[in-house]
Amino acid sequence: MTFRVGLLGHGTVGAAFRELLEERAPAIEAAVGVRPEITGVLTRSTGDFESVVGGSDLIVELIGGVEPAREYILRAIQAGKHVVTANKAVLSQHGEEVYDAARQSGVQLRFEAAVGGVVPVIRVIHETLAAAHVDRVHGIVNGTTNFILSEMTRTGASYEEALAEAQALGYAEADPTEDVSGRDAAAKMAIIARLAFGAPVHLDDVPYEGIERLTADDIAYAKELGLSLKLVGTAERLDGGISVRVYPAFLYGAHPLASVGGSFNAVTIESPAITEITLSGPGAGGPQTASAVLGDVISAMIPPPTPPAPAVPQPLVTDVVSAFYLHLQVADRPGVLAQVAEILGLQGVSVRSVVQRGIGEDARLEMVMHPVLESKFLAAVELIGGLDFLRAPPRVIRVIEAPFAE
Amino acid sequence: MTFRVGLLGHGTVGAAFRELLEERAPAIEAAVGVRPEITGVLTRSTGDFESVVGGSDLIVELIGGVEPAREYILRAIQAGKHVVTANKAVLSQHGEEVYDAARQSGVQLRFEAAVGGVVPVIRVIHETLAAAHVDRVHGIVNGTTNFILSEMTRTGASYEEALAEAQALGYAEADPTEDVSGRDAAAKMAIIARLAFGAPVHLDDVPYEGIERLTADDIAYAKELGLSLKLVGTAERLDGGISVRVYPAFLYGAHPLASVGGSFNAVTIESPAITEITLSGPGAGGPQTASAVLGDVISAMIPPPTPPAPAVPQPLVTDVVSAFYLHLQVADRPGVLAQVAEILGLQGVSVRSVVQRGIGEDARLEMVMHPVLESKFLAAVELIGGLDFLRAPPRVIRVIEAPFAE
Repeated sequence: MTFRVGLLGHGTVGAAFRELLEERAPAIEAAVGVRPEITGVLTRSTGDFESVVGGSDLIVELIGGVEPAREYILRAIQAGKHVVTANKAVLSQHGEEVYDAARQSGVQLRFEAAVGGVVPVIRVIHETLAAAHVDRVHGIVNGTTNFILSEMTRTGASYEEALAEAQALGYAEADPTEDVSGRDAAAKMAIIARLAFGAPVHLDDVPYEGIERLTADDIAYAKELGLSLKLVGTAERLDGGISVRVYPAFLYGAHPLASVGGSFNAVTIESPAITEITLSGPGAGGPQTASAVLGDVISAMIPPPTPPAPAVPQPLVTDVVSAFYLHLQVADRPGVLAQVAEILGLQGVSVRSVVQRGIGEDARLEMVMHPVLESKFLAAVELIGGLDFLRAPPRVIRVIEAPFAE
Repeated sequence: MTFRVGLLGHGTVGAAFRELLEERAPAIEAAVGVRPEITGVLTRSTGDFESVVGGSDLIVELIGGVEPAREYILRAIQAGKHVVTANKAVLSQHGEEVYDAARQSGVQLRFEAAVGGVVPVIRVIHETLAAAHVDRVHGIVNGTTNFILSEMTRTGASYEEALAEAQALGYAEADPTEDVSGRDAAAKMAIIARLAFGAPVHLDDVPYEGIERLTADDIAYAKELGLSLKLVGTAERLDGGISVRVYPAFLYGAHPLASVGGSFNAVTIESPAITEITLSGPGAGGPQTASAVLGDVISAMIPPPTPPAPAVPQPLVTDVVSAFYLHLQVADRPGVLAQVAEILGLQGVSVRSVVQRGIGEDARLEMVMHPVLESKFLAAVELIGGLDFLRAPPRVIRVIEAPFAE
């Protein structure tokens, strides 16, 4: 069985989506019994809207901007097609029109990719927290500005320097106004607030300030006070109403958003029943947005979420590669470190860092190893454990590195 | 219209779930057009399983342990009822049996509350990442052990002292073996791995080590190397197979799990298409688990997720309360700080911290205020801006505190 997907727009994200869908189609079919297939593509110069819609079960809209995207979305909905879109402009300025149309036609409208990159904030607010009374959402929802502020913090660069670097690395557009002014974040916060509070929120309702006036000095001074600088979007209930706004703010180190660096996005959702949930991940890039779109497409394919597909056995691996911390208490005499290092080296274990400290007649060796097969490292530790200068059994703890250096 | 919910088990979580459902029923009805209602309760001493199941559209199983919970879940599924459960014992030891039964009966089986407290890891892996090839999941999935390790890190307490404190605060059971041995985390990682990789994973397949042997010294020494200690569950693809295991590990500061403190849970999911997503929130407590269960119940009530319900307008609040950072460059002469403080005080602005530094003939004042209405603070700043000893315009940036101190 085939699930027919019509694609509107074939820029960076559209091309990445098409590639990802084709790559994952067999796995999706194995999991849910239906194979998604691109059955029509509309680009600026090729394809015909009517025939793309006519031949599809679902339309993916990746054109961006208000028109003609808004009109296409509405016409697809009226034709009874499900719609998945990444279009924050349409949703933040014409959300009610589009939501009403989808409700009336009884089709699904999904838009995870419009907000927060791969961070599944829409699904979590709309589904996980469907029953919760959300009090407040704080979000870092623009990767460009978070990258610029992180660079200013890390290197002491000026705003202008960090912006130029973001442009060179492809994190910022040639004209960065939409991002650095806070307007992109404001559109996303309008969409989030609409979902979290069930009230109509238009982009025009969201006052925003950007990061252009911030200086490296602000950041440096505030570091001394334990603060880190972010472009924050806030949507919150306040007595008798709601407030939605975007502004640069300092966060205390204990705030879950304080440690979100680089071009990452993150959202903290506060509700009395759950205290808070924080979601974080890379901001929008072509492959990330494509992945969020495909997740929505699959959800639309299988409306009542099924139990997991039948399991396929896989071998269980028991000897794995890991980095290790090794703590040794030894007699403080010459040649000890050399002997330990020799045993490690013979087992192919490479030392990443070592600290040696005298404590009276003994010494403490704290070492961190580069990743190595567990069996090899433990064999080395067993040999080390037999050395006569050891004052206590070796202590071993695994070490995990950050998954992706930013 | 009513959606009938039968409740099996009425302990802490069951009671919290019942209360939450009754409190939120009107809002749920307004949003999805159907009102959930508890139509039967089975406790150890009251109620009858057959009649609870017979009178329900969906069964919530909160008994815990393998039997009779397993039998009840299977019988409810065979009777064509949807099932929501928080039972990690059943799913990690009899998952395939239960999943197969649900697939054959065509009912929904949802179990977000079995893993990770309020952190929506099941939904994100099963739905958002349905199309993604997940390479690895690292999780802090046991709040008790994370609390103990965080206390040992924060205060230098021994394992025994921190455990006693966790018990006093209700974070650890009188018999803490299940948590501190790593077995609870192993059951959760078995469930996560099954979903992430589509392979059968039984609790017995998951080797686990606990935190009992860790010392405050291990933590203190490793801090010097930039490492923080966590009980980590890992599920990953390795050449030709998978590995699932639980063990204490050091994390480098840049790892998204390194800053997860207190009794919080968090999960990092790595996949080539998305790089990584991190989800964090409080570990299981009665209200949190109840909230996760209710989210699953609502999802089962509205299989094809609808567009947002019609919006209800709410007033937009523009003058909000915020904490502020204020930076002043002033002439370094007596009385300056007093005059600034007086203006702030007259507007009801209270200073939380202040740093003053001489720079040649000038001085720099960096102040952080307690939260205050924005209009009052800005009025004070305007007055301060007119003072003759000011060397540069005042610089103002909002400050956000951590939402919930742990």
